Amino acid sequence: MSTRLPTLAVVGATGAVGTVMLDILSTRENVWGEIRLVASPRSAGKLLTVRGEEVAVQALAPEVFDGVDVAMFDVPDEVSKEWAPVAAARGAVVVDNSGAFRMDDDVPLVVPEVNAEQVRNRPRGIISNPNCTTLSMIVAVGALHRAYGLTELVVSSYQAASGAGQQGIDTLYDQIAKVAADRTLGTRAGDVRAAVGELGPFPAPLALNVVPWAGSLKDDGWSSEELKVRNESRKILGLPDLRVSATCVRVPVVTTHSLAVHATFSTEVDADEARRLLASSPGVVVQDDPANAEFPTPADVVGTDPTWVGRIRRSLDDPRSLDLFLCGDNLRKGAALNTAQIAELLAAEFTAG
Amino acid sequence: MSTRLPTLAVVGATGAVGTVMLDILSTRENVWGEIRLVASPRSAGKLLTVRGEEVAVQALAPEVFDGVDVAMFDVPDEVSKEWAPVAAARGAVVVDNSGAFRMDDDVPLVVPEVNAEQVRNRPRGIISNPNCTTLSMIVAVGALHRAYGLTELVVSSYQAASGAGQQGIDTLYDQIAKVAADRTLGTRAGDVRAAVGELGPFPAPLALNVVPWAGSLKDDGWSSEELKVRNESRKILGLPDLRVSATCVRVPVVTTHSLAVHATFSTEVDADEARRLLASSPGVVVQDDPANAEFPTPADVVGTDPTWVGRIRRSLDDPRSLDLFLCGDNLRKGAALNTAQIAELLAAEFTAG
Repeated sequence: MSTRLPTLAVVGATGAVGTVMLDILSTRENVWGEIRLVASPRSAGKLLTVRGEEVAVQALAPEVFDGVDVAMFDVPDEVSKEWAPVAAARGAVVVDNSGAFRMDDDVPLVVPEVNAEQVRNRPRGIISNPNCTTLSMIVAVGALHRAYGLTELVVSSYQAASGAGQQGIDTLYDQIAKVAADRTLGTRAGDVRAAVGELGPFPAPLALNVVPWAGSLKDDGWSSEELKVRNESRKILGLPDLRVSATCVRVPVVTTHSLAVHATFSTEVDADEARRLLASSPGVVVQDDPANAEFPTPADVVGTDPTWVGRIRRSLDDPRSLDLFLCGDNLRKGAALNTAQIAELLAAEFTAG
Repeated sequence: MSTRLPTLAVVGATGAVGTVMLDILSTRENVWGEIRLVASPRSAGKLLTVRGEEVAVQALAPEVFDGVDVAMFDVPDEVSKEWAPVAAARGAVVVDNSGAFRMDDDVPLVVPEVNAEQVRNRPRGIISNPNCTTLSMIVAVGALHRAYGLTELVVSSYQAASGAGQQGIDTLYDQIAKVAADRTLGTRAGDVRAAVGELGPFPAPLALNVVPWAGSLKDDGWSSEELKVRNESRKILGLPDLRVSATCVRVPVVTTHSLAVHATFSTEVDADEARRLLASSPGVVVQDDPANAEFPTPADVVGTDPTWVGRIRRSLDDPRSLDLFLCGDNLRKGAALNTAQIAELLAAEFTAG
C-alpha cells in the first residue's frame, strides 16, 4: 500500500468557484499531497492561500499536469473541452465542472450521495460534475427516488447571481446600490431598468426583479439551463425516460439556488415518512416547521454544505406526488464541494492502491 | 332607460390597493355618478383625489351605503365579513376583494375575461374578487383551458412585497437600504438576517433572499395562499376536480407577481398555436422571443393592466403539457383593476336598467 498522498491540480483556481474550492480544500480532512493551482496565463504568479500556505498560480500548459493524479477543472466549456483530454493524456483523472462532457456516454456524471459507484466507470479518464441547479436538488430527490420510484419532476428555480460567476455577483451588488436610495422604484414599468444601467451577464435587471432566463437558447424555446436539469437528472438517477419540465429563473440573491419541486412517484407517498427519510439521508437537512417560520431560505443556507429541504407536502390531488422547497449553496454543493467529494473518492483509490 | 349614473363606494380607499383603485377610476372611461371614499374612522376627513377632484374620506358606518349602487371593498377579511352584508342590506351590490366570501357557494368569484356571466348569479348581493396570485395567471390559463381542456396545474410563484400591503413595500425598501452598502452580504449563513433587522410582515429577510411562505398555516403544511390558488382556480374555471399543486414564494420585488406554470390538458397542445391563441385573448399580452431577451419580468410589467405571458414551451416529455412564465401587476389586475372591471359590469346593468 502506497503511503504517497496523491497530487491535485485545481484548474480555474482564481474564479468564483475556485475561491470556494480553496476554502473547502483548507477545511476538509486533508487527503492530498501537493496541490497545484492553475489558471489562465494572466493570473500566473498570483499567490493564493490553500491549507494555510501561499501557493503561486501556474499558467495552464500541458506540463502542469505531469505527476498530477487528480485534476479539478472549473473553467468555461471550451477550455475544458480542449484541456481536460490533455490532462487525462498526462495521467491525471479529471473531475470537470463544465458542461463539456456531462452527456458523454463515456463520462460518468457523479453525485457521491447518489451514484458514487459510477466514479470507477471512466474510460476517458474524465468524470463530470453536474450543473449547479441539478446539484441543488438531486441529493434529496435521489433519496426520495430510492424509496418511492420517481416518474416525473416539475421544477421551478430561484437561481442566485453567482451562478453567472463573479461578474454576476458584482452586477447584483452594483444594481442594489443603484436602486437603494429611491423608494419609488418598482412602481412604474421600466423604472428599475432605467435606474440600474448596466445589465452585466443578465438579460434584464436583477435588482428588484426576477428574470426567467439562464443559459443559452436551445430548440423550442428551452434554455440550456432547463435542459441540463432534465438531462442530467435522468443520467444521474439512471432514469433515461424520466419526465422533466423545468423553468429556470434568476432572482436577486447572491449565492444559493432554491427550487420548488413537484415530484411524482410510482407509489403513494407519505409526507411524514418522506420527512424522516430525508432527515436520515447523507447530505440532506430537513427544516420544515412553518408554524415556527422554519423553512430553508438562501440567506440562511449560504456557506453551508447540505441540501436543505422544507415545505414538504403531499399533493392534495395526487397521493403519488410530493411538493418541496429546497436550497443548496450553488458554489459549494452546487460546484466546488461536489467536485471535492468526487476527487476524494479518487484519492481513496490512490491511497488504497 | 335611466340616465342616472350609478353611485360607487370605495371601502378601504387609503390602502395600497385603494390608492391604485383611485388611479384606475381616474383613468378608465367614467361610468360612475357619485364616488364615495370610505375608510376606517382614523382616516375620516382625509382628502384624496379621484377623477381630478378632491373627495373627503368618510368613516365606515351603515349610513355611508345609503343610496350606493355598487360598493367595492378592499379591507381585511374580518372587516369584509362584518360590513359587506351591511352594505348589501342597504341595497349596494358588493364587490369584495377579501378572502371572506370567495368560497361561499352563494357568492360568485369573477374574472371578467373568464366568467363574466357569473356576475348575475349573486343571491347575497356580494361578488368576490379572486386572490392576487390566482388573478395573475387565471386569464391566460382560462384562455388555454377553453382551447385544450385543463386537467392539472403545477404552479410556483414569485410574489411581490406589496402582496403584504404597504407594510410589505416599506419593509422591502428598508431592508434594501440596509444591505446596499455591504458587498460581502449573502455569502455567510445569517449575515443578511443580521443586517436587515426588522422582518416586517415577512417570516424571513426579503432583501437578497426568497421566502417560501405567504399567508397562514393550514392543514398538512399548506399555506393559505397555496390553497387559494387551488380552490379559486377550480371555482373560477368551473372545474371542481382540477388537480392543483402550488408553492408560493415571496421575492424581493416591489409590485407584480410572477408565476411559473406547468399546465396539463386533456388534448395535445402546440406551442405556436398556444402563443397565437393567447395573443388574441383579451387581457393577455404575449412577450416570447428569448433570442432577443423578450420575456416578461416584473420590473417591466408593473403598472400595466394585462397578464404578460412568455417562455411558452410544450413539455418535451408530455405533448399535453405547456410550461409558461407569467407576470401580472398584483395591485392592478391582481386586485384593483379586476374589482373595477366587475363593478363596470354592474354599472352597465344599472345604466341599461
